[in-house]
Amino acid sequence: MQNYIAKAVYDGTNFHGFQRQDNAVTVQETIENALFKLFGAETEIFGCSRTDAGVHALEYIFNFFSNTQIPPGKMVMAINHKLNRNEISVMEIKKAAPDFHARYSNKGKRYLYNIRNSRIKNPFTVNYSWYVPQKLNFDSMKAAAKYFVGTYDFSAFMSSGSSVKNTVRTITDCTVSKNNIWKEQIEIEVEANGFLYNMVRIIAGTLVDVGRGKINAEDIPSIIENGDREAAGVTAPACGLFLKKVFY
Amino acid sequence: MQNYIAKAVYDGTNFHGFQRQDNAVTVQETIENALFKLFGAETEIFGCSRTDAGVHALEYIFNFFSNTQIPPGKMVMAINHKLNRNEISVMEIKKAAPDFHARYSNKGKRYLYNIRNSRIKNPFTVNYSWYVPQKLNFDSMKAAAKYFVGTYDFSAFMSSGSSVKNTVRTITDCTVSKNNIWKEQIEIEVEANGFLYNMVRIIAGTLVDVGRGKINAEDIPSIIENGDREAAGVTAPACGLFLKKVFY
Repeated sequence: MQNYIAKAVYDGTNFHGFQRQDNAVTVQETIENALFKLFGAETEIFGCSRTDAGVHALEYIFNFFSNTQIPPGKMVMAINHKLNRNEISVMEIKKAAPDFHARYSNKGKRYLYNIRNSRIKNPFTVNYSWYVPQKLNFDSMKAAAKYFVGTYDFSAFMSSGSSVKNTVRTITDCTVSKNNIWKEQIEIEVEANGFLYNMVRIIAGTLVDVGRGKINAEDIPSIIENGDREAAGVTAPACGLFLKKVFY
Repeated sequence: MQNYIAKAVYDGTNFHGFQRQDNAVTVQETIENALFKLFGAETEIFGCSRTDAGVHALEYIFNFFSNTQIPPGKMVMAINHKLNRNEISVMEIKKAAPDFHARYSNKGKRYLYNIRNSRIKNPFTVNYSWYVPQKLNFDSMKAAAKYFVGTYDFSAFMSSGSSVKNTVRTITDCTVSKNNIWKEQIEIEVEANGFLYNMVRIIAGTLVDVGRGKINAEDIPSIIENGDREAAGVTAPACGLFLKKVFY
């Protein structure tokens, strides 16, 4: 069996996350059904990460094994045809080394979190950003973001319900910027060698709490150090989160 | 009764156009229901134009008469609260002169038509652009667009089913540009003192046919002059069309 690596893009609005589950439409099930139609054989896919319901992916990596004779270039269009859904497209497929695994071979990821900071809700961004009507202090948010860069125990930025033992991660980049075209769009980008459960959404929620004046930017280091989830900000809604880049 | 002018923005994906009709959710009905809840009185709204099902509005103007004591500034949030829908927001309300009518007082409009010219369908633009996978000749489209500017009988760019008698309109601007950030996004903008039924969508379809090499840019003047709908291009799908600006 040949191992294949595939890159996809999806709008997570109508998906209950990546991972297959009963009684809910997931990305995994949707792609596996398309592969079954194309190959005529059950084909499991291995995703680069679980994503929550409503989270989007500009670049999602998965791998799968197949005996198909279809060349990778033709497979892209054939899978998209079988998918037959507007919410998801496969962008690229390549042959991969036998031991490549989208999740275990992963070396890091980059996420984008969108905030819509305007008095009036915008219908075109509502499924793709967190609508925050109160005026945010953009400069404080920028200042606060810098404190997240480094190797720390990020327990304060992890939702309960995770069984992970090592909560130390290295954040290599954390930036807050305004979109050049839509000034009311605030974009947070976070890159790390790995993420804890809801880590980006809690960082985004904390940065918004800084922007609202509820948390001081200078207090971020002690919030990280104390490891108390209650001291960090709210968990920002899933709809603003995009998986942007996956590193190997 | 005081006359009020209102500006709204809406995602037309799930609306059957502006104008109220039986057995279908329309923008007019949705706003009128919200005004009824707010004012406790049936309030008819007068829209700046009918829009087809699936067409969006970045700026839609309507007017209505009311005895309400709520100041216009507070009315915006109150209506949005009653609307309680992600697809539509009222942005602004002002007092208007008694004889102001959103449609009959209108002096011109500007439309945006989005084309997604990429091999792979993008889930995030699929409801907001026409997905054209074949490579388009951008320069030919730009050249063709110029021929539309002027005062002409645009019968060749009107769908049947319209009862309009005077088919002469003045197009003051018609441009084709690429989005700076998403290079695969081609944007057509058309400004005129008035538009015939489906006029922008047929112009967009014609420009895409030019981009595909099916129509020569230099043939646009004779297509306009001959007034033959069959000689013009296809009617581009509604989802790519945005009402962008309304002039008074």
